[in-house]
Amino acid sequence: MAMATFKAISRKLPGGLAVESESHGFKVIMDEPPSMGGTDTGMSPVEALLVSLGSCQVVTAAAFAKSQGIDLKEFWVEVEGDLDPAGFMKGDPNVRPGYQEIRFKMHVKTDAAQGKVEAFQKFIESRCPVGDSLGKGVCLKAATIVIEKQ
Amino acid sequence: MAMATFKAISRKLPGGLAVESESHGFKVIMDEPPSMGGTDTGMSPVEALLVSLGSCQVVTAAAFAKSQGIDLKEFWVEVEGDLDPAGFMKGDPNVRPGYQEIRFKMHVKTDAAQGKVEAFQKFIESRCPVGDSLGKGVCLKAATIVIEKQ
Repeated sequence: MAMATFKAISRKLPGGLAVESESHGFKVIMDEPPSMGGTDTGMSPVEALLVSLGSCQVVTAAAFAKSQGIDLKEFWVEVEGDLDPAGFMKGDPNVRPGYQEIRFKMHVKTDAAQGKVEAFQKFIESRCPVGDSLGKGVCLKAATIVIEKQ
Repeated sequence: MAMATFKAISRKLPGGLAVESESHGFKVIMDEPPSMGGTDTGMSPVEALLVSLGSCQVVTAAAFAKSQGIDLKEFWVEVEGDLDPAGFMKGDPNVRPGYQEIRFKMHVKTDAAQGKVEAFQKFIESRCPVGDSLGKGVCLKAATIVIEKQ
């Protein structure tokens, strides 16, 4: 299989902290709550990261349930992550700006036995592309800058 | 400042690979294209990860431009990432399921000089919570499983 390149674009909306993003024709608005200086017109980027992660686990579960011998009647996942705002807001050098820990609760409706569901959980965690990216880290290249003409 | 805990929930929709997610009252649908077995009703989770990352850079730029001495008239960022689908689809042990590299192009409309914009770029990259999470990795705890009653 060939390497795939995925793309997205995120643009600051006028005033405040709201952002409009687009990827392969789909748009989404993100923002921050008033406590962070935003106007709360959408989920925040750190919340969207959790959504990306949970959605990827759901897609992984749905795509591979049959081949893993799981009759998947329903599946949902609760994701939560701890982040100390002092890293972002104040630049405290002792506090990372990002998440310190992320936890999951997977809800599975199935006839499969407990042991088989636990093996399926481990399969999902090891195969999920967003989970692999976030758990092991990704090489982020320094940005190219384009200074736009006035 | 106290540690903040962010939350999201992602639920498989009936049939196909579509997922509905929610975080603090905002909902979004994600899906996969037909080539991956989905019905293309939304961006995919790996695209949403890029959107989360780009949006977080935009929020960081907007929140700190003034204190960094940048008159930020407009700002947008293009994000792209390389991922080999063989890791996810085939479980090839030599190919990670996640992204191998992510690149950025930041577009800045400002009166500031090139050097000041480059310092601002480095500030954004070091302070962005999603970028820090993804670039350095996060501790992902193994999921708790709840087997739901039929």
